[in-house]
Order: sequence, then C-alpha cells, then structure tokens
Amino acid sequence: MSELSRDVAPGHAAAGDASLRARAAKVIPGGMYGHLNAALHGEKYPQFFVRAEGARQWDADGKEYVDLMCSWGPMIVGHRNPRVEAAAAAQQASGDCLNGPGPVMVELAELLVDLIPSADWAMFSKNGTDATTQALMVARAATGRTKVLVAHGAYHGADPWCTPGLSGVTPNQRADTIEFTYNDLASAEAAAAQAEGDVAAVLVTPFKHDSFEDQELAEAEFARGIRALADRLGAALVIDDVRAGWRLDLRGSWEPLGVRPDLTAWSKAMANGFPIAAVTGAEALRGPAQTLYSTGSFWFSATAMAAATATIEILRETDGVALMHRAGTRLREGLAAQAASHGFVVKQTGPVQVPWLSFEGDETLEKAMHWAGACLDEGVFLHAWHNWFLSAAHTDVEIDRALQGTDAAFAKLRAAYGAD
Amino acid sequence: MSELSRDVAPGHAAAGDASLRARAAKVIPGGMYGHLNAALHGEKYPQFFVRAEGARQWDADGKEYVDLMCSWGPMIVGHRNPRVEAAAAAQQASGDCLNGPGPVMVELAELLVDLIPSADWAMFSKNGTDATTQALMVARAATGRTKVLVAHGAYHGADPWCTPGLSGVTPNQRADTIEFTYNDLASAEAAAAQAEGDVAAVLVTPFKHDSFEDQELAEAEFARGIRALADRLGAALVIDDVRAGWRLDLRGSWEPLGVRPDLTAWSKAMANGFPIAAVTGAEALRGPAQTLYSTGSFWFSATAMAAATATIEILRETDGVALMHRAGTRLREGLAAQAASHGFVVKQTGPVQVPWLSFEGDETLEKAMHWAGACLDEGVFLHAWHNWFLSAAHTDVEIDRALQGTDAAFAKLRAAYGAD
Repeated sequence: MSELSRDVAPGHAAAGDASLRARAAKVIPGGMYGHLNAALHGEKYPQFFVRAEGARQWDADGKEYVDLMCSWGPMIVGHRNPRVEAAAAAQQASGDCLNGPGPVMVELAELLVDLIPSADWAMFSKNGTDATTQALMVARAATGRTKVLVAHGAYHGADPWCTPGLSGVTPNQRADTIEFTYNDLASAEAAAAQAEGDVAAVLVTPFKHDSFEDQELAEAEFARGIRALADRLGAALVIDDVRAGWRLDLRGSWEPLGVRPDLTAWSKAMANGFPIAAVTGAEALRGPAQTLYSTGSFWFSATAMAAATATIEILRETDGVALMHRAGTRLREGLAAQAASHGFVVKQTGPVQVPWLSFEGDETLEKAMHWAGACLDEGVFLHAWHNWFLSAAHTDVEIDRALQGTDAAFAKLRAAYGAD
Repeated sequence: MSELSRDVAPGHAAAGDASLRARAAKVIPGGMYGHLNAALHGEKYPQFFVRAEGARQWDADGKEYVDLMCSWGPMIVGHRNPRVEAAAAAQQASGDCLNGPGPVMVELAELLVDLIPSADWAMFSKNGTDATTQALMVARAATGRTKVLVAHGAYHGADPWCTPGLSGVTPNQRADTIEFTYNDLASAEAAAAQAEGDVAAVLVTPFKHDSFEDQELAEAEFARGIRALADRLGAALVIDDVRAGWRLDLRGSWEPLGVRPDLTAWSKAMANGFPIAAVTGAEALRGPAQTLYSTGSFWFSATAMAAATATIEILRETDGVALMHRAGTRLREGLAAQAASHGFVVKQTGPVQVPWLSFEGDETLEKAMHWAGACLDEGVFLHAWHNWFLSAAHTDVEIDRALQGTDAAFAKLRAAYGAD
C-alpha cells in the first residue's frame, strides 16, 4: 500500500482483501455479483482494488500488477490519464448532473459525427446495455417489426433480453431474439427465414469475443453478407462495439472491412473509465430515434462527456490504435516465443489489441486457470476465460514487464503439468 | 456567465442556448431526447446548463435560477456540496473504474444495511431503471413466476418493459406487467386475480407521483393492504424509491407507515448527482439475488460510491429530511398565501419535500405552463407538469428568493388570465 492511497483513503489502507471479502459476504449477495465476482476467476484473483496509474494497478493487499485487462475494457489511455482527469475535473467543477445537458454534450456528439462515417447523430446513456437496448428500440421504431437476429453466445449486455444468465428472466423477455452462428451466413439466412419477414435488426459484435472460447475475427464475406442480408430484409444492421470499440478503428470496428452499420452501440473505453454509452446512427434512422422515450437521470451528465471528448481526442491525436496495435503485437510475439520455449502449444486469438490465449487441448481450462493464476502471482493481471484489453499506455516497458511475469508463469505451468 | 465558469470551461462561455440548440439539432435526434428535451417543457425552458452551486444554477445564457428541480431529483445536499465533492475527488485520485470494486463498495453496502430496516444486503448499478429491473429479476428468481403488478401511469424507468413511450417497444416486452390503480386495493386484488397465481412482485412507488396529475400520498390502508396482498400471493413487495428516496425518510419512504418492502430500488439523490443506483433487499431474497447475472462495466466504480457514502452521511448527520421538510413547508405556505392573494385557487400535492402545484380547472395545463414560464423568467426553476424537488441546501434565504419570483409570476398570470 503506497503513501498515496493511504493519504486519499485513510479508512481503507488497513482493509486487505480477505477482511473486505468477509465484510462483503454479509452485505452483498454472494459477496459480489456480476462479472466482477472474484469467485468466477480463480483463487488467485483479487476481489478488491484500491489504486491504478497508467498501465499499473494495486489490489487491496497492496500488490502491484501490470494491467492487461484495463478494468475489463474501459481503460484505454492509461489509468488516471492526466488529460482525461483534468477535462473531467474542470467540467465537474462547473457542474455534472444539472437540470439539462451542458455544451459538452453537443461537442461530443459533433466529435462522434465527425469521426464515425456511419454516424449522423448520437444519443448518450450510461451502460453498454443501455446502448444495445436503445439501438434495438430505434430499429424497431423504424421498421415497426419485433425480432432481432443475434449470434449464439454473443454478449450484448445484462438486461433480461440479453443476459447470459437466465435466472429472474421470463420467456417473454427472450421471445424477440432469434439466434444464428457467427461467421455462418447461411445460419443468419435461416434465422431470418424463421422470423418470416418480422426482422427489425441484425445485431453483431465486430468479431466473436465470447467468453470461454477462442475468439474469431469476422470474415469479410460474412460482414458483407450480413450487410446485404439486412438490406434485403429492410432491417437495421447494428454493430455492438461496446466491447471492442475505440481499439480497432476509431471510425468503427468494421470500417476496415468496408462495411458500415446503420446503428452502433458504444461504451466501455469511450471515456477511459468514466461511465458513458452511446448509440450513433445513420440519417435515415434520425426520425425514428426521435420517437423513442429512452432516458435516464444521469444520461445527460456532463463530466463523463468531457472525459469522453478528451479520451477520443487523445486517441485521435496520438494514433492510439497504432499504439495499442504495437503493444499487442509485442505481447503476442513475446507470448508465442515463450510458449514455444516452454513447450506449450497455444492459440492466440482476436485482434492483438483485444487478445486472448488458450492452451491446446485444454477444454476444461485447467491449464489456462493455472497459468493465469501464476501470472497474477507474478504481477501480471490477465484472465483465463475472458479476452484481455490493451491500452495506449502499454509502452514497450510495460509489455516487457508483463512478459517477464508471463515467462515465469509458463515455467510454473511446465513444472506443474509438463510440456505439451 | 460568471468568471468561474469562464475559467473552467473556456470554450463554452460563448455558446448560448440558441446556438447550442442549432448545433444540437444537427447531431442529436430532435435536438435532444428523453425527459430533458426542452421542447417538452415550454418555450421559456432553457435547454443547456453550464454551472450550479448550492441551490442555484446557471443556464447557457448565463441566467441564474433558484433550482427547485434539483436536476430532476439527484441534487439533495446542494450542487457541488463540498464534502461530497471532496469524497468523490479523493476516491477519483486513487481510482474509480478498476478491475474490481474498491473498499468503498463494502462501506456503502454496510451503511445501507445499517440505515434501512428492510435491507440485509445491497447491489449497485447506474440507472434507476437498472435498479427496478434488477429488483424484478430478484423477485422472479425467488418465486419462479413471471408477472408484476404495477400501478397504472406510474413511472418505473425507460427500459422497454416500463417506458411510458411505446415507440420501439414490442408486445412481448410489456406482456409481464398487469396494472392496477394506485390507492385502490380492490383493483390490485383484481390484477392479482387476473395473473392466476403467477405474480412474482407487486411494484409500487411510495406515493403517486405521475406526471401531469396531482400527486397522491399513499393511504396507510392501501400500503398495509399491498403488503398483505404480496404476502398472501407469496410475491415480493418492491418499493420503487428512485424518485422519492432519501427525501421522505432515510430508512425508506414507507417506514413511517410501518410497511416494509422485500426489495427497494434506489437511485437519483443517492449520491447528490453522481451516477449510481441500488437494490436493497431482505434476507430471504439474498439467495435468489445471488443467482442473477446482472452487471455492468461501471456498476462497481468507486467514485460514485464514495459520493453516495458522503451524501447519505451528510443527510443522516444534519437531519437532511427535516431541513427539506422545513424548506418545503415554507415554500408551500408561501405559495398558498401568494395564490390566495392573487385570487387563484391552487392545489399543492405530494410531500412538501417533493411538491407540485396545479391550478383549479386547468385541465390543459395552460395556466400552469404560463405560470411556470413566468417563474423561469423570474429566476425560479420549477416545472408545470412534473413534481419538483427540494434539497437540504434550500435555506430560508433560498426559499424566500424563490417566493419573490413566484409572487411576480402569479402577478403576471393574473394580468394574463385574471383571477379565478
């Protein structure tokens, strides 16, 4: 525990992870809920965190990590990036949650429209789920139809219509989605046929980033085919760029494929950790978007918008995507060399900026869990069954520090399991 | 525009409301969406705001107002309350959106469990809608049932299952709610009968605060009857305290009636404007709550939790409810005297802390809109068809300043319409 965190949070310094877990077990169901419940992530995974700076973070026991999860996506230009923090603090000093939006809302919407070729307008909210839900409302308002085609296993949020857990969810809440298989155009056609013309939207992630599985990039033919299918159906193509957005291409993650959506859902990294989400859309959907009643008490708050504006400007000015690509490539190449030298056959999948590593034949994820746990021990924060995230703050020094830890973790894995 | 806001937001000072509206019209559907679209609120209503302090706010044209809307609820201990801002800034300096929650999450949950007799545990999210939705998920997980009884016209959020606007909403999304009439126990019994035993929850606001209508306090017999009905059905009683919470009774808004819910949804004023929501629940629902997959990228962020902890502690230490009650009583008595002296017959409804005023026979709200517009002209920010909110920062001086403006507005109304 550093002097800094002692100073800013005097009551917290004495509370280590174990004592916090014991207290949490009394006042929070299961001790924690949702994707940040440490029980899901292996015994080495810390539950509580106290501080972060740049590409580093510290857990409640004072242990330091190179952060390859980036707060599960939101951090993209470094924890506590000075320019983002200054922009947010300046706005906060004037006003955040007022009786209406601030000028920064217009500036942010203008920035998105300027940056994103498929965007003629923007609406803001708080959660990624707000954005995917709102995008589907726009598509339904535009088409007067009900059904949405979604890829089996894709994560689009945690509202009852899309949460991967079905507890507390009713059949009616799931009745308007029809599934297809990612990168399988024929299955999407079949899903459309099943809807008998009642398709409001086709909703896709820019690549397949389902948990527990190797990631898959979108095949160009699939992306173009999905675009053509939506056009033929008169349905909206919605890209859920909540997870991947701002890391692959600031213009939208399918822009390099030449495929433009009608609607895009954004969140996570948009404001470097400040809570915000957005839907951007094409001109033809502006009118339908106006007909919605979709709102929230904090959706117009100015501080997160100021942070988003600063984050996106930094990414644009510094070519943040290239920085992340460089870091991701260095990490991928380093891990490949280490795995080979330790005698493991691994697969590294997904874009290098949003990577994941799996072990050959490790269906139970036993090796992945062991290795990821060893990485945590070595001060490298990554994950056994969820993709990781890189940021523009992952300099060569940070990647090399991470690779020191992963190398030691491979050695421990070899000691425990032997080589492949 | 003050020197302060010039200093903190140099690019904004020159942008007045009209020019911002013109720019917004190009990049935001309808120029603005949701409940903060100024077009819904009359021609005098400003669209953009730049600053707030205590009980005052400034719009983008630099006009100052006494704020009787409190950002539509969230502000409760004064805009930019120094203690809340300091707690938030200290947490932010350490870390906000990390790879897991901070110690402050445990502290906040402990505070809620300590404060709220019906709370044995807490879960946090971002929007009031997150909380109402999550509470119903818990109730459904606990009961294995689908239907929810809700009062006709009650606002429970803007997700498709509850938004008052039906554009972009499918029939399936609305199929699990059955309506009854607020303060009419027989209608709730009839709604239950309609569900034929399939009732997961009865969802009620602590008083009737529907827009465009006089508010109604809950009759004690109704509250007790709803509790008994839920018990008889084996359903959860859920209080939606998003709008009214923290203003009537810190222990929960039906605690003075002696009626305890199984689940409560909280948000709005919980962190004095920082974005947070919560569900609190009884011990019997802890297990079902653990089975949900309900989460969000920013639901565990620490800064808003630090702000919530500070806000609730201030309210508790200063008896904030009593301060709001005093302010609301002074406002209500002042308005009653002014209306009478100007010859108007008005109704003032709802708790004094969450007040509304309507004019006798003014079904079209024409007088209400005229008077509210005149109040805006006079520097008093209130609303023609939505309840207002008072805060602990509304000192006698602030209320008296507001009453100066309302008196002048009554005079203008009399000049325009004559007395009743």
